[in-house]
Amino acid sequence: MTRTPDEFPPFGPGRHLLSVQQLDSGLLSQIFELAELVDPIAAGTVRCTVLDGAVLGSLFFEPSTRTRLSFESAFLRLGGEVTTTTGFTFSSMAKGESIHDTSRVVSGYSDVMVVRHPDKGSVAEFAEASVVPVINAGDGDGEHPSQALLDLYTLTRELEARGKTVDGATVAIVGDLKYGRTVHSLMKLLTLASGITFRLFSPPSLELPLEIENYVAERGHRIIECDSAGEAVSGADAVYATRVQRERMTEEVLATANVTGNLLNRQILHDAGAQDIVIMHPLPRDSRHDSFDLSSDVDDLPGLSIFHQTDNGLRIRMAIFLVAMGCSAEAVKAATKNQSWNAALDWA
Amino acid sequence: MTRTPDEFPPFGPGRHLLSVQQLDSGLLSQIFELAELVDPIAAGTVRCTVLDGAVLGSLFFEPSTRTRLSFESAFLRLGGEVTTTTGFTFSSMAKGESIHDTSRVVSGYSDVMVVRHPDKGSVAEFAEASVVPVINAGDGDGEHPSQALLDLYTLTRELEARGKTVDGATVAIVGDLKYGRTVHSLMKLLTLASGITFRLFSPPSLELPLEIENYVAERGHRIIECDSAGEAVSGADAVYATRVQRERMTEEVLATANVTGNLLNRQILHDAGAQDIVIMHPLPRDSRHDSFDLSSDVDDLPGLSIFHQTDNGLRIRMAIFLVAMGCSAEAVKAATKNQSWNAALDWA
Amino acid sequence: MTRTPDEFPPFGPGRHLLSVQQLDSGLLSQIFELAELVDPIAAGTVRCTVLDGAVLGSLFFEPSTRTRLSFESAFLRLGGEVTTTTGFTFSSMAKGESIHDTSRVVSGYSDVMVVRHPDKGSVAEFAEASVVPVINAGDGDGEHPSQALLDLYTLTRELEARGKTVDGATVAIVGDLKYGRTVHSLMKLLTLASGITFRLFSPPSLELPLEIENYVAERGHRIIECDSAGEAVSGADAVYATRVQRERMTEEVLATANVTGNLLNRQILHDAGAQDIVIMHPLPRDSRHDSFDLSSDVDDLPGLSIFHQTDNGLRIRMAIFLVAMGCSAEAVKAATKNQSWNAALDWA
Repeated sequence: MTRTPDEFPPFGPGRHLLSVQQLDSGLLSQIFELAELVDPIAAGTVRCTVLDGAVLGSLFFEPSTRTRLSFESAFLRLGGEVTTTTGFTFSSMAKGESIHDTSRVVSGYSDVMVVRHPDKGSVAEFAEASVVPVINAGDGDGEHPSQALLDLYTLTRELEARGKTVDGATVAIVGDLKYGRTVHSLMKLLTLASGITFRLFSPPSLELPLEIENYVAERGHRIIECDSAGEAVSGADAVYATRVQRERMTEEVLATANVTGNLLNRQILHDAGAQDIVIMHPLPRDSRHDSFDLSSDVDDLPGLSIFHQTDNGLRIRMAIFLVAMGCSAEAVKAATKNQSWNAALDWA
Repeated sequence: MTRTPDEFPPFGPGRHLLSVQQLDSGLLSQIFELAELVDPIAAGTVRCTVLDGAVLGSLFFEPSTRTRLSFESAFLRLGGEVTTTTGFTFSSMAKGESIHDTSRVVSGYSDVMVVRHPDKGSVAEFAEASVVPVINAGDGDGEHPSQALLDLYTLTRELEARGKTVDGATVAIVGDLKYGRTVHSLMKLLTLASGITFRLFSPPSLELPLEIENYVAERGHRIIECDSAGEAVSGADAVYATRVQRERMTEEVLATANVTGNLLNRQILHDAGAQDIVIMHPLPRDSRHDSFDLSSDVDDLPGLSIFHQTDNGLRIRMAIFLVAMGCSAEAVKAATKNQSWNAALDWA
Repeated sequence: MTRTPDEFPPFGPGRHLLSVQQLDSGLLSQIFELAELVDPIAAGTVRCTVLDGAVLGSLFFEPSTRTRLSFESAFLRLGGEVTTTTGFTFSSMAKGESIHDTSRVVSGYSDVMVVRHPDKGSVAEFAEASVVPVINAGDGDGEHPSQALLDLYTLTRELEARGKTVDGATVAIVGDLKYGRTVHSLMKLLTLASGITFRLFSPPSLELPLEIENYVAERGHRIIECDSAGEAVSGADAVYATRVQRERMTEEVLATANVTGNLLNRQILHDAGAQDIVIMHPLPRDSRHDSFDLSSDVDDLPGLSIFHQTDNGLRIRMAIFLVAMGCSAEAVKAATKNQSWNAALDWA
């Protein structure tokens, strides 16, 4: 009997992080404060050795290079060491080994594990047999809590830099709202704030699942369905655009959705009077012609925050490790020092 | 002219470890004492930097994730760093490069190498050209000395915890005794003890090779052939069960062996009066239905030691590196200190 | 608009290294002096932590195990940490992500990147979007500057050990001069010396491209075309032999080239009176029968330098990192200390 990810106890020292539903406002504050604290460490301007001697087991049963590198770099930045495994099958699993046995064995070699698996619920099954904390780095249609955390952290910082707050914000979400796992997790996490207005646009057959709509509405937030991306961004503080996950759709769904051209570009933002909006995207974005994604012609707009998201991802994952490994802000400060090299790029 | 693994000199500082036949009682004692010493380091409760600055070249020409992670974690736990390569072919080998050239080049980047290769004798060929010590992590039908060492170490510790010794022990070995490389190496290594009684059970056509039988008998130990796993475990101090390596058998052999159902389970142990026996397995075990392997219904029996084996594997591999790199127990102690994080899982 | 590799500014602190044309005599001296300085660190006899806390992003979009391990070991030897990715496709690139987005994201996780890519110019495109320095580890038909540097460094050291200098040297280059990228880069780099005589031999249809011939001639060096490898090595101070890159040739070219037997062996060297010549090769060499490559029967000749090249490659790559990361010789010395293990192989 494996618990579903949201049936696990709240995240904390020595605990697994499997679902955003293990997070509350207090934990969000703690994680975001740690993410601020580690910023110079993440930027490579000071050195931290708080996790000196700790070994991360990085297990990616499906490829996700950026997520893997972000977690691994985060652990190294804190002074730890990493063992890494990629690819769908463990050789031992191909020989009939259970997830229980694999997890129990490999957890004995590590102090904490990051696990990605294509099957929903598999990371929770992994966690049940592990002797060390497990961080879910994505389980198929399921959860990807570090992505939701970095999205919320970025939204919070970008709004604050503009004199606004997440409380009371209007957030446009456009694109594939059905299969976009990151959209679901972010919307759930945003319910911890107060008075959010969501302005949604999706092509036919790619609408937000009713379950998420209800989850948000039950917690007192407002959802406005829009007929175009332009209508969605109009009057919004930020827009979150997502790629159409063609590889997960049937031919029929793709035909109904009829997705060509740009989902969102400079012209659409201009016409809606939203040139200065905060622009977010979970990446990767599809930069091919007619990909129905966020156009790269927005890349020099002042609100472009898509690379702030990935940069922040490193900091958020450092914070997650610090919580799981029981390291306080004081321990981090005590283990920080100057270093003798310079990572700054010379653009001359 | 490449030497076979057992023609290499005894294992020691600066020496390759290719075969269990390079080990004697004195070396076993030294390795087992080091394995005890590093236990808190392996558990992540103290930090050791005795191998600070050393680089391990981890070369797996065939996949073996658990073995690779165990070796790599062992090296990191001692303060070293790891470079890793997995997959059957080096791109350069596909271009006609000899094992000699590959080994000579890569050994120049490392301080010690761990090599796994699908072909018997290839690791010895690798070692001949290397400028640093090479540890054999399995060469096809050949040797896998660290597995035999961790098996013997676990058996020794489990028996001692029950007030017994390996000398004079009765050890049941059941399953595929023909293709099970770990069985052959463990039996050879056990001949260094005195007065062992082996109680063997294998399906038809999967019997122990005559060469191993003779090796054991010539050194004064006793072999009793049994007609069932139940008969083998009866009166034994420990049982070592192995998976049927279907992938290495012909259809004909598989048909003769006729392996279905459980090889060993709770009922069989109960009927034989062996509920408290030490239960070992080299893993992975096949947990699929009718896999003719060790059933998971034994997992809560008090003698279950299969995960003690994998945990001990980390410690044994740390000890192997310490011997190869010329580090004494005193050097380890001098390089050990406290650390600022906590790996303990909070089960609440 | 991406610049070609040779349009980038000279290599230096915080700068990309994409082409040998970014190097001048002063930089060569600096790199070679650093390579000398780090020799005991590379050999594992002392420990250096000058890059403590720095993270290398090692990105190999095509496999090249030896080059990858050499760069990764170099970074670890200087006290840094490594994240590694191998294989042709990033999962995100398969979803239509641009090189720009991939580079910008991953560079945010690293302090410096080493990138290999099968397509000429792709590493330069990568560098344009990166927020940290990028070292080109080979881009198809393009450049591989660290290989050219280690070749020139080895040639310089080997000639000096024999009381000679690179200035005024006679260098034979034999084999595939058309597709051998390393030959082109080395010849360009050698133009920084004075008065080089090149003695060239290649099979029909594998001749040196006119562009390289002109580049060398315009800078005042001499090229002599020879009819056999024996004629080329006659009177030369060193010979650089290359593998026939069959995988990059059409059937027609291969038929015209008619490459069988040995390109260069002991007998050819003996007949040319060149038994003591410095022998170099970029490796891998094809040791299969009739491979038309450097025979292994030269392996005990006193001038064999092919493994000096790979050993020196580690030192040259350490020097490249030191320059890119802004570390002086003084910083290296200040961060060097003794260590407690011994990497020496015991041959007994």
